[in-house]
Amino acid sequence: MNPTITAFEASPDRGQGLARDMRVRWALEEVGQPYDVRLVSFGELKKPEHRRLHPFGQIPTYEEGDLTLFESGAIILHIAERHAGLLPEDANARARAIAWMFAALNTVEPPIVELEMATILERDKNWYQERHPILEDRVRVRLRELSSRLGDADWLDGAFSAGDLLMVTVLRRLSSTAEVEKFPNLAAYVARGEARPAYRRAFADQLAVFTASLPR
Amino acid sequence: MNPTITAFEASPDRGQGLARDMRVRWALEEVGQPYDVRLVSFGELKKPEHRRLHPFGQIPTYEEGDLTLFESGAIILHIAERHAGLLPEDANARARAIAWMFAALNTVEPPIVELEMATILERDKNWYQERHPILEDRVRVRLRELSSRLGDADWLDGAFSAGDLLMVTVLRRLSSTAEVEKFPNLAAYVARGEARPAYRRAFADQLAVFTASLPR
Repeated sequence: MNPTITAFEASPDRGQGLARDMRVRWALEEVGQPYDVRLVSFGELKKPEHRRLHPFGQIPTYEEGDLTLFESGAIILHIAERHAGLLPEDANARARAIAWMFAALNTVEPPIVELEMATILERDKNWYQERHPILEDRVRVRLRELSSRLGDADWLDGAFSAGDLLMVTVLRRLSSTAEVEKFPNLAAYVARGEARPAYRRAFADQLAVFTASLPR
Repeated sequence: MNPTITAFEASPDRGQGLARDMRVRWALEEVGQPYDVRLVSFGELKKPEHRRLHPFGQIPTYEEGDLTLFESGAIILHIAERHAGLLPEDANARARAIAWMFAALNTVEPPIVELEMATILERDKNWYQERHPILEDRVRVRLRELSSRLGDADWLDGAFSAGDLLMVTVLRRLSSTAEVEKFPNLAAYVARGEARPAYRRAFADQLAVFTASLPR
């Protein structure tokens, strides 16, 4: 039986693939695991039936037989532990790849989300002009550190891993800015992720949800 | 050979145990693994020798033979995979405990850190009075959801796990506010974590670093 994930019924980014279901779709495509998608409206997110799957009322969730999971990082780790292709076999390399998963979600993503939220929610506030550059600086600090560690390597630690998958999706959240492009090796890193056949299949599938929602 | 972790030479919270080494100390105490600590000054954090261990110039790091890890979540998962006591044996329960680890770090901690940073960095800005309540609301949304899921259970999903360990340390970051106390079941949950013998040993050890740094 295929696992079922949830995704937004109405793509908030008009099919750019920035919502967190994209990460899970990509991971499932990398390992060749077919899956089903249940689309959820914004109203349904906050209802008890969805809260039972996701205590914080978000997407994606992951259902597979008796198991229900939430948190894209945990879902991807679960997939990576059960299929080859997302984590190295060597125990130390595996632990380091998992460290990059946590780094993407707990060190690099938070200042990016904060910048994104301020751009959406605080644009009319009288502090926006002063505060926005501070948020950009926080993001740049992380990008500079990441760029410095990546150097001229293709991926963060040896072969492509779930750590790279998460980091690429986190960096893509900056696609409406020019921040990543200031670091040519990071821009090339994101492009390398986007060029993977599994990424392209996942992207096309989430885009199809948006396209189908358009009025004819 | 014992693993070696890094911690701040000068406790930024004067021994309250809010820095991220506390999480790793607690996990090591839960599983009964002795460890060594190397103290790092703020200046050393940004030097190349430390950046080789931690690309983002933070603590804690974890060194064990050939393996170097960073990110407290990844370090704790590594410890939990090698010792009994932090993750359930049942595969589905184990995956759910890991989901709570990610939830603590990627869903609950970011708004708490944001509130903390604003309190420290934006107190004299002219927008502080207007923006601070917005940040408090964001934290309360997450606390309400967490409180609702926890209900009258002792821990988030069955027995105490690494997910609870991380969630308790994340909630403790609010200890200079009265936010957690607004949710009695969350306050009791944090107290339950703090009462564990392993927590108390870890707390005493990090406090000793602070006490030793005081002028005599």
